[in-house]
Amino acid sequence: MAPQLDFFFYIGSTYTYLSVMRIDELAARMGVSVNWRPFNIRAVLTDHPFQGKPAKTKYMWRDIERRAARHGIAWNGIPEYPIEPANLANRLATVAFQDGWGREFVQQIYRSWFLKNQNFGKTEVVSAVLTDMGKDPASMIARAESKEIRNRYIEETEIARSLGLVGAPSFVSGTEVFWGDDHLEEAFEWALTSSSRSSAGP
Amino acid sequence: MAPQLDFFFYIGSTYTYLSVMRIDELAARMGVSVNWRPFNIRAVLTDHPFQGKPAKTKYMWRDIERRAARHGIAWNGIPEYPIEPANLANRLATVAFQDGWGREFVQQIYRSWFLKNQNFGKTEVVSAVLTDMGKDPASMIARAESKEIRNRYIEETEIARSLGLVGAPSFVSGTEVFWGDDHLEEAFEWALTSSSRSSAGP
Repeated sequence: MAPQLDFFFYIGSTYTYLSVMRIDELAARMGVSVNWRPFNIRAVLTDHPFQGKPAKTKYMWRDIERRAARHGIAWNGIPEYPIEPANLANRLATVAFQDGWGREFVQQIYRSWFLKNQNFGKTEVVSAVLTDMGKDPASMIARAESKEIRNRYIEETEIARSLGLVGAPSFVSGTEVFWGDDHLEEAFEWALTSSSRSSAGP
Repeated sequence: MAPQLDFFFYIGSTYTYLSVMRIDELAARMGVSVNWRPFNIRAVLTDHPFQGKPAKTKYMWRDIERRAARHGIAWNGIPEYPIEPANLANRLATVAFQDGWGREFVQQIYRSWFLKNQNFGKTEVVSAVLTDMGKDPASMIARAESKEIRNRYIEETEIARSLGLVGAPSFVSGTEVFWGDDHLEEAFEWALTSSSRSSAGP
């Protein structure tokens, strides 16, 4: 079995754009299987990482711009931020991963946000992404708002909290948490090493 | 002239331990000249990055422990934290860099903190480090407390603030700020690239 890495993310996190756009290629190159898990970082954190913090916000955007260039990821200037409410998009991602089209959905939402500066907090924006993917927006949104999906999203959030996650994106191998797109390579290496450690056992 | 990188640090920052222990070797390997600059991050930030944040603190120590192992840096368990007051040690570093023994002083302070769990906030601890280095503690501390050194430390702090620094350690190449030990390689690469860009000019 390929080594596993859990990718905990929140649509609405800025640095998550970088991971969403590069994790699949890195996973393929390194031979690691990635499990994408949307969760609600806003329910885990007590304070917002950037709101009311202009110096940190300015640094964050420049950091993302530089890292996008470094990884060959498209960049089209600073998009609208923060996007509220973000939970519909994240619950739709929860539906999408159950059905097997989660990665494309998340990537399309991030492209619409970062490259077209569209606000995915608006129902018409997520609906347009769904329509482009050949999905029926009304029925998908109904599922996203169902009790089952709401509970699943809350459960994933509670798992994230119990693992000790302190931000998004985070990468988890067993009980080891790696926070931030800049820890992605380290997380993959950890997953590979711990996997070879356990398969070398008696 | 070798490419330059400014290393802004604060004795008392935990992640700075990693940079202090590995920056010289990386600089030598990459052919970059590093300018060490102590400053007061506490005067720049409006809130403390870890105090009152148990999940973030727990993550931070595990992250440092893993990254120390990754870079072959000694680790001896979680030391006392935070250390207050830290300004004497940072002002002594300001003196030490004027006199050319700054790196060794900062490394020795960090070793006493991380490897022997000594509290450099105590005058006797910094005095012992100075004595071990063949310096007279009383005269060095008098210089560290002088108006000249106090002003120099404040000036460096104001430069850090005007550059937009949002944490320690930070690495600066021209006006580009890279925050965090995990950005050290990227900062060196930037310094090298911008240096070759400017020397290739007309």
